Amino acid sequence: MKELFGGPGKVSGLVLRMGQCLFAAASMVVMASSHGFATCTAFCYLIAAMGLQVIWSFSLACLDIHALRLKRDLRNYVFLSLLVIGDWVTAILSLAAACSSAGVVVLIIKDTNMCKSTPKLSCHMFQISVALAFISWFFLAISSCVMFWLAAS
Amino acid sequence: MKELFGGPGKVSGLVLRMGQCLFAAASMVVMASSHGFATCTAFCYLIAAMGLQVIWSFSLACLDIHALRLKRDLRNYVFLSLLVIGDWVTAILSLAAACSSAGVVVLIIKDTNMCKSTPKLSCHMFQISVALAFISWFFLAISSCVMFWLAAS
Repeated sequence: MKELFGGPGKVSGLVLRMGQCLFAAASMVVMASSHGFATCTAFCYLIAAMGLQVIWSFSLACLDIHALRLKRDLRNYVFLSLLVIGDWVTAILSLAAACSSAGVVVLIIKDTNMCKSTPKLSCHMFQISVALAFISWFFLAISSCVMFWLAAS
Repeated sequence: MKELFGGPGKVSGLVLRMGQCLFAAASMVVMASSHGFATCTAFCYLIAAMGLQVIWSFSLACLDIHALRLKRDLRNYVFLSLLVIGDWVTAILSLAAACSSAGVVVLIIKDTNMCKSTPKLSCHMFQISVALAFISWFFLAISSCVMFWLAAS
């Protein structure tokens, strides 16, 4: 089995998982603390998807720390197949959540000027949360491709 | 190199490409003929992304027909790498377009009741177009995974 940047049980893999976890948690907290998010289904879905990503990435970061401390090799086919399925499901859900929220943000800021007519809406917070969700998804996409490559090779 | 369902130059691959092309074209036509789509950036982006997918999938369908007629083997690494990059870029753009449009559709139908208050909007057409875009993306996702698996193995 190949050695790749970002593989399971490696320092680069741990850094990727920590990045996913931190940006997803930040996106979730910013959205949950913004005013008016509960009126939009896409924003509620973003919080749920980022919550799932935090749980998934944090669990795998813990597993990477465990493997690094005990110098265990995590690259066996059954474990890698589980990682591939989990990573791809989480990555698709996160991208879907980030894109649906981005569509709504563009609609209320640019297309309808709802932000100017309704100053109570925390439009800047929505934008920051969506940007953080995209960064978190980018880290998860790298992990997903590495796992798929390792499982296929 | 492995033999896989949906690989380049195979009948199953041609069926997948035709499916992608037809559903993307249908999604584009339905959205473009609906009333009020131009006021929303996400819907315009859906038309652009589906247009790109039609061009990409139609070109590869033609290439599959050519390979099937002349019984050529298309599975070499340079060609497969190009297919993987093209398929993944198109698949991510299509999913992003379908999800952003879905987020807007849910907002105007469910969250704000804009469809009832503005009967001029073709809300049913928006829903049909988004559903067709998701079906088209599903076919493209299968092709992308097959190409990545073939290139990695």
